[in-house]
Amino acid sequence: MKSTVPARVRIVEVGPRDGLQNENDPVPTATKIAFVDALSKSGLTDIEVTSFVNPKAVPQMADAADVLNSIERSPGVRYSALIPNLKGFELWLGCAGRFALDQRAIALFTAASETFNRRNTNAGIGESIETFRVITDRLRTDMAEELPFIRGYISTAVRCPFEGPIEPAKVLDVCSRLLDLGVDEVSLGDTIGAAVPTDIERLLDAVLTEIDARRIALHLHDTRGTALANVVTAMRYGIAIFDSSSGGLGGCPFAPGAFGNLATEDLLYMLNGMNIETGVDLTAVAAASESIRAFIGHPLASKELQALEAAGF
Amino acid sequence: MKSTVPARVRIVEVGPRDGLQNENDPVPTATKIAFVDALSKSGLTDIEVTSFVNPKAVPQMADAADVLNSIERSPGVRYSALIPNLKGFELWLGCAGRFALDQRAIALFTAASETFNRRNTNAGIGESIETFRVITDRLRTDMAEELPFIRGYISTAVRCPFEGPIEPAKVLDVCSRLLDLGVDEVSLGDTIGAAVPTDIERLLDAVLTEIDARRIALHLHDTRGTALANVVTAMRYGIAIFDSSSGGLGGCPFAPGAFGNLATEDLLYMLNGMNIETGVDLTAVAAASESIRAFIGHPLASKELQALEAAGF
Repeated sequence: MKSTVPARVRIVEVGPRDGLQNENDPVPTATKIAFVDALSKSGLTDIEVTSFVNPKAVPQMADAADVLNSIERSPGVRYSALIPNLKGFELWLGCAGRFALDQRAIALFTAASETFNRRNTNAGIGESIETFRVITDRLRTDMAEELPFIRGYISTAVRCPFEGPIEPAKVLDVCSRLLDLGVDEVSLGDTIGAAVPTDIERLLDAVLTEIDARRIALHLHDTRGTALANVVTAMRYGIAIFDSSSGGLGGCPFAPGAFGNLATEDLLYMLNGMNIETGVDLTAVAAASESIRAFIGHPLASKELQALEAAGF
Repeated sequence: MKSTVPARVRIVEVGPRDGLQNENDPVPTATKIAFVDALSKSGLTDIEVTSFVNPKAVPQMADAADVLNSIERSPGVRYSALIPNLKGFELWLGCAGRFALDQRAIALFTAASETFNRRNTNAGIGESIETFRVITDRLRTDMAEELPFIRGYISTAVRCPFEGPIEPAKVLDVCSRLLDLGVDEVSLGDTIGAAVPTDIERLLDAVLTEIDARRIALHLHDTRGTALANVVTAMRYGIAIFDSSSGGLGGCPFAPGAFGNLATEDLLYMLNGMNIETGVDLTAVAAASESIRAFIGHPLASKELQALEAAGF
């Protein structure tokens, strides 16, 4: 009874952005740059580097331009930044020129829950989509044939800390609107790490009725240890893009002290064991995680990293 | 694309034995008794209480008879002890009388790897089976119609720290020999927490050709975070008995400092979310875990327990 699983999975490394944004301890800019550079050498093809959000609201990302202006640019790696609004877009545009065309990527983010989106961005989902329309219009005007890779995020795709369970039809609706704007892929986020495999089945049963599985990524948090069970479930649907964070960096924004993002090392351990190709070297990712651990005020959450350390890697 | 999963799963709680045996810190006998008593009130039907192994080799279990002689006996709960040899059997027999017939259970343990079995028990697999034959013969002589529930354990059913990957045919062979002795169910152990879902598929593809899925339990360790992914995979084969340890107590015996047993709370969180009945109250298990945490020199590994604590349960 072999499962049908993809031959290859693309991992989107979100440690430098989603990971560090949700850690309390500030990490020096030079350390972040060294961290991204170490990840660049691991075989990862997608690294989410930073976010051009309001530095007063998110001081962890105040050095966005510095980081983007200083990291090495490895061939074949896309370096992404989160863009909340036109101002953030202008700031990103000021850094984009140093990257080759195929290294440029931006991410636009909204949610499937109105309440969550409003609390997170002070705008309704419709308003966020309109902002993205302005940004994507500007992109087409300013960059013409040189468009970056555009990713859309939908937070609370399974459960919202304010609204509870989210209807899969709602996720499909937001997803379609993002794709209509010209977004290349949409990452569905289990923001509070609440999902179990049947949630993933319900979500994908709805979303994949209208959308090609190749346009969908899953962004899983491991708050209750279910992330890899959800990955296995999603792979049976043909999903082959997963977000993860090296070392398991990042907390759960709505449960301080709880575990956060799915760890890249744990994901790689499982995919390697299943003979699913990723092109990513687990040991290199673990070394990158180690480079940042001294700045994090708690042990890194990745179980595979701890197993490697226990074995004296 | 709904998965076929069992309507009901039976959880075998191994925290008091497999958990505490693999923690370095000694836990007072009275605390162990209170721990088992708390677990008895959670709805669990199977609790592995202790082990009658050599106290010089395993000092953590030196109080086996004291614990078994002092715990409360909840109706409908089976209280199990590990029996390595005839001497251990005699010691267990001295305690068994205070339990109702349907509360009595013993566990016999061997491995699928010759090297592991020899290092763990100083006997080859064949010798272990012969010892079990002496014990089961004695059981039939001494207890006649009052046989306890008999469980067989097969360690290193996927991978051995000495021999590497284990052939599923080897596991099937040991499994059949245990069932031939009159064992009621066999628990297949991923002792070092190395298994990924394709390993579980290969294992069950072999074992279930000859053995009814209702006789098979999986004993998973979460050393690399893959345990729940393996549970989901096994449930698709009709496996509906899983061993777990409250709080995630227990380490990996071959990687000191690494994570150990699958946590009962994490398993329950996932099964509850999937509407799979267990009869076990997650909060009651979490409370039992909390009662023992002060004696363990590291945070309890269960992610769900930490999420509950972060939420101030």
